[in-house]
Amino acid sequence: MQILILGAAGMVGRKLTERLVREGQLGGEAITRLILHDVVEPERPQASFAVETLTSDFSMPGEAEKLVAGRPDVIFHLAAIVSGEAEADFDKGYRINLDGTRFLFDAIRIIGDGYGPRLVFTSSIAVFGAPFPDAIGDEFFLTPLTSYGTQKAIGELLLADYTRRGFFDGVGIRLPTICVRPGKPNKAASGFFSSIIREPLNGQEAVLPVSLDVRHAHASPRSAVGFLIHAASMNTSRIGPRRNLTMPSVSVTVGEQIDALRRIAGEQTVARIRHELDPTIIRFVEGWPRRFDASRAESLGFRAESSFDEIISIYVEDELGGVVPT
Amino acid sequence: MQILILGAAGMVGRKLTERLVREGQLGGEAITRLILHDVVEPERPQASFAVETLTSDFSMPGEAEKLVAGRPDVIFHLAAIVSGEAEADFDKGYRINLDGTRFLFDAIRIIGDGYGPRLVFTSSIAVFGAPFPDAIGDEFFLTPLTSYGTQKAIGELLLADYTRRGFFDGVGIRLPTICVRPGKPNKAASGFFSSIIREPLNGQEAVLPVSLDVRHAHASPRSAVGFLIHAASMNTSRIGPRRNLTMPSVSVTVGEQIDALRRIAGEQTVARIRHELDPTIIRFVEGWPRRFDASRAESLGFRAESSFDEIISIYVEDELGGVVPT
Repeated sequence: MQILILGAAGMVGRKLTERLVREGQLGGEAITRLILHDVVEPERPQASFAVETLTSDFSMPGEAEKLVAGRPDVIFHLAAIVSGEAEADFDKGYRINLDGTRFLFDAIRIIGDGYGPRLVFTSSIAVFGAPFPDAIGDEFFLTPLTSYGTQKAIGELLLADYTRRGFFDGVGIRLPTICVRPGKPNKAASGFFSSIIREPLNGQEAVLPVSLDVRHAHASPRSAVGFLIHAASMNTSRIGPRRNLTMPSVSVTVGEQIDALRRIAGEQTVARIRHELDPTIIRFVEGWPRRFDASRAESLGFRAESSFDEIISIYVEDELGGVVPT
Repeated sequence: MQILILGAAGMVGRKLTERLVREGQLGGEAITRLILHDVVEPERPQASFAVETLTSDFSMPGEAEKLVAGRPDVIFHLAAIVSGEAEADFDKGYRINLDGTRFLFDAIRIIGDGYGPRLVFTSSIAVFGAPFPDAIGDEFFLTPLTSYGTQKAIGELLLADYTRRGFFDGVGIRLPTICVRPGKPNKAASGFFSSIIREPLNGQEAVLPVSLDVRHAHASPRSAVGFLIHAASMNTSRIGPRRNLTMPSVSVTVGEQIDALRRIAGEQTVARIRHELDPTIIRFVEGWPRRFDASRAESLGFRAESSFDEIISIYVEDELGGVVPT
């Protein structure tokens, strides 16, 4: 089985690569070749199968054709300009997130000749725009309030139509906020959801810019990879034509996040969180989803954590060698 | 006020043109120039203001720029490859309905310099895909089951994002089935909804291919034009970011359509309907919406007919000189 990952140098792409290398198979089939693509060169892991790295801008005419020329059996399309950049640079966001996605889909379509890979597309909860019901259900409409969310919603529509037409076998998965993100603090408005856990565990101070009753939906990086693997290997005959699925997540308030951190790492860790309200971030967060009812994805076998304690424990296992620092 | 109509040669475009010419104004402002565009040359009406006709394929690079170069204040974008053709010719459907729409939107955007016309886009109930609730509400999700519906849904998303970005002031209106369509019978699967009224009124036989309990949602051509005029002249500050609206309609069964025809034109007219079930059309119709709850559009002042009797009466007034044939 040949696998292609677009966006392989990103956090989720790297973790997906690690898991594929570790397991050597996908859905019971041995991996024979893995192609890692990104706009910057992805790391090439040691593996029991052939690994190739490719660097290009897949939104340039002709590039997508090269990526799929070897007819990969499974394509993970994780490549995207992120929300802030797509908002700041209108042309670039549409070029990468819309044109790039369409070039990829068309490159697959044009091969024809019975070629129809499994295509897993990462969409985002940014396809939703406030006001929301308390829990966003599977039939709630998409009214994105960012260009990024618009581009992801268009990708979902194309994926469903190209799948219905038989050009590939697509599954779109809407990722919740991924928490706890490893690495350094970043400037994303949502960064505090991770940093109030990560920095205190690493002995550093973190700033909480919103009130304790702010509620949001999370899943771990390990779950994100699990969603991708499941989407790539599941029996899609059960999905029907509605190919885009909101992934399961853990809905908690910031206060509940901190309570979980206290249970796992104690009061002296929690004490590293400094509460300093930021009106700009507060305003952003008011427009974000609080909870999802992801019944369809759950009934199709997608699984996230069942508590925020579990999400922290996964961070400790995967990033801190299993040892809670004191 | 300058007005541009794309798709001016179609049935709705012609009726919109007629009304603009008759009224000489839009939203209280005198029309100074009307530009009629289509891929075939639109008829040029006699009017109290300048009328220009243009013929081109607006999906060819550079054509959309020419259309908006004169900075029309209001743009009606009615141009589209219809459902059946977009399904039969994948490339053509995406080229006209998606690329053409995006070229138009970008041509407006690139003018910049404070230019921001009102843009009215005709979407379609084809953005919805079965299974449906009994009545499709304003927050029901878009899961089109045709390439045409996919392209219209993408147009809606682009319209909302370009409006949010301030490039134009867009309103997308989802038209229900337009009934009674004037003219000759056509081969559209939905054609019978009009032909079982039109042909009997014209002394001809019509075939009803589905059972009497099939329910569907209708509005007259006069209402379709009314929706466009209202969308072009309403105060959009009341809409908010959710710029795409399901239009009001009359939900009736085929049996109720025929009862209305009987009340208006008598039993001898109804007797011209021959019932002959067609399994193919029956299967199509099972996937179509039956009823809409268009509360948002209604609260924003959009009005359709209140009964199917009224829809037939409008056909008699507008197409038969106000005289019910016997």
